Amino acid sequence: MKFEAIAVEKIPLIHKGDDLPSLICERIELQDRDIVIIASTVVAKAEGEIFRLEDITPGEQALEIAARTGKDARFIQAVLARSREVFVEAPFMLVTTLAGHTCVNAGVDESNIEHGFLLYPSENPDSSALKLGEQLERLSGKKLSVIITDTNGRAFKIGQTGVAIGIFKIKPIKRWIGEKDLFGKILEITEEAVADELAGAANLLMGEGAGGIPVVIIRGIDYYCEGNTSINETYRPEDMDIIKKGLRCLQKKI
Amino acid sequence: MKFEAIAVEKIPLIHKGDDLPSLICERIELQDRDIVIIASTVVAKAEGEIFRLEDITPGEQALEIAARTGKDARFIQAVLARSREVFVEAPFMLVTTLAGHTCVNAGVDESNIEHGFLLYPSENPDSSALKLGEQLERLSGKKLSVIITDTNGRAFKIGQTGVAIGIFKIKPIKRWIGEKDLFGKILEITEEAVADELAGAANLLMGEGAGGIPVVIIRGIDYYCEGNTSINETYRPEDMDIIKKGLRCLQKKI
Repeated sequence: MKFEAIAVEKIPLIHKGDDLPSLICERIELQDRDIVIIASTVVAKAEGEIFRLEDITPGEQALEIAARTGKDARFIQAVLARSREVFVEAPFMLVTTLAGHTCVNAGVDESNIEHGFLLYPSENPDSSALKLGEQLERLSGKKLSVIITDTNGRAFKIGQTGVAIGIFKIKPIKRWIGEKDLFGKILEITEEAVADELAGAANLLMGEGAGGIPVVIIRGIDYYCEGNTSINETYRPEDMDIIKKGLRCLQKKI
Repeated sequence: MKFEAIAVEKIPLIHKGDDLPSLICERIELQDRDIVIIASTVVAKAEGEIFRLEDITPGEQALEIAARTGKDARFIQAVLARSREVFVEAPFMLVTTLAGHTCVNAGVDESNIEHGFLLYPSENPDSSALKLGEQLERLSGKKLSVIITDTNGRAFKIGQTGVAIGIFKIKPIKRWIGEKDLFGKILEITEEAVADELAGAANLLMGEGAGGIPVVIIRGIDYYCEGNTSINETYRPEDMDIIKKGLRCLQKKI
């Protein structure tokens, strides 16, 4: 049992309207049940999600947060516009995005883009994954899954890992509930977050800086599934999220 | 650029004193710069970290928590004995272990072991990784890294992923600080948690239940490094851990 992770090399700098599926299929021969893993930065660039800092007018909340934290109010406004709740303001803004993803700066990115511009993640990464996936399947004639990835920090530890923010034809969580362990005991709770593990594996080849590998294929492990799937399935329900409750507790005290 | 993840198959059920490095080398020919990824359960079994529930006498704190939560006081005692702080008691016990790892139940495991027994993780997983790594290098004559892995849940999302809990000859965090992005801008903060991404990749083959693949080799990506490294490097310093502060805030209120 084995799998490979293969970087799709020499993908050019991406601009609005670029046809990512064609660029991918020109550079690698896809096979059935390949998992095509695509960095959210190139998805956002192809979708034209680039905005100028100077075009952003900070609202009242952004100005207040800027006054408290010393950060650029226009950047803060960009983050707030994409967030449904702010949990931490400094030293970094931790928010839950409108799409339900909890991360720093709502995924708004100042790096890997020209100075003075911001790159916003897709509004609906599952929908972006679906469009890319359907086109990749059409061009290649193969059954494919797609994962759109970002890099996020995590609780309790420093450092960032690749994570899944949008999916197509893959279940994000593999459930082992009801299966037996090595001693025949029924496993009570095991849900393996395979989409995030695949995203992390791909990120090992993607690199954060000038390495510039925005697409990685994982081949040899079968998670292909027809039918609707959504990354929302991975987000913890609010009433079961004790860490959010803790962060809200702190905000009331401050 | 590519890498492979290869399951080491047919490793037998492990018992105290079993020679894991020999069992591995008999089943796969290792190559220079291979990363040998080993599930903490088999490391713990080989080290004899198995205890009987009925031999555990719950202390006062364990009895109090058991009264509040309805859980087995002896199991709680096992968790407390390995923890330096408890952040959440129910519906699961979230603790920081003596080794500095924040996880559920201090890694104490009731599954994949006979009924009535508990499996404790190694007291010092870096030290276990060093012993295994040195023996693997001796037997194979190759330069090797080792990662000992567990599966953990995470904040804000359901599901578990493979994570690194002990390392040998690999830096757990790859630092990109000071490198440039695609536009020549200096990256300010990027620390990639490669040991955890590798652990997650390996977990895709390991399986949680009766799949029973406790050892995976990752080959083709070079993270080999001589000299001392420690997984402790990944643990967020307490004074910079806002999530822990939030959980403590909740505990004061309850």
